[in-house]
Amino acid sequence: MLAPRIRHTVAFALAHGEGSEEERDFLAAATRLGEIPGVEAFAVLREVSPKNGFRFGLSMEFADQAAYDGYNEHPAHVAFVQQRWLPEVSDFLEVDYTAV
Amino acid sequence: MLAPRIRHTVAFALAHGEGSEEERDFLAAATRLGEIPGVEAFAVLREVSPKNGFRFGLSMEFADQAAYDGYNEHPAHVAFVQQRWLPEVSDFLEVDYTAV
Repeated sequence: MLAPRIRHTVAFALAHGEGSEEERDFLAAATRLGEIPGVEAFAVLREVSPKNGFRFGLSMEFADQAAYDGYNEHPAHVAFVQQRWLPEVSDFLEVDYTAV
Repeated sequence: MLAPRIRHTVAFALAHGEGSEEERDFLAAATRLGEIPGVEAFAVLREVSPKNGFRFGLSMEFADQAAYDGYNEHPAHVAFVQQRWLPEVSDFLEVDYTAV
C-alpha cells in the first residue's frame, strides 16, 4: 500500500485588524500546532498574492494519512479549532497536495 | 531591502476527463514550466482535499520578487498561459506565501 506524503495547507483571513495584538496572539497560538506529533515542515506564512482575499497560511507535511488523521484528532488541534479558529478566522480554504 | 523567498502555488481543475490523455498531456506540458530560469522546488501536484473543487496544483519557489517577475514574463510561461492554461483550465486559485 502506497503511503504518499501529504502537504496540508490552509489559507485564511482573520477577523482582527491588520497588525493588531489579537492578530499577533492568534499567529503565536497557531505556531504551537507545529509541536503536534507527526507534523513536519511546519510554517505560519503570510499570503501575498493580490488575487485572493486570504492574508495568512499554515503549511505542514505528513508522512501519510495516518499522521494527518493523528494531527486532526489531537486534543491540541481540536482545542485550537474550537477556541481560536472558529471564533477568529473570517475566511479560509484548505488545499492538500500529494505527488501526482 | 529585504528580498523574502516566495512560494507560488496555483490550485486548479481541468476541463478534461479524469485520467484522460488530454489531462496527461496538459500535466506534462505544465512540468516544463519548472525549466524556466529562477524557478526552484518545482512540483506538479495532485490536490486531495475533499473541501475544494481543485484537482491539481503547481508549486514553485522564487528567491525574490525579481525572480517571480522573470518567470511571469518569460516567453515560455506566457505561451503556456495563452496556449494551454486559458483554454484547458476550468477553475483555479493562486496562493502565494512568504515568511510572516
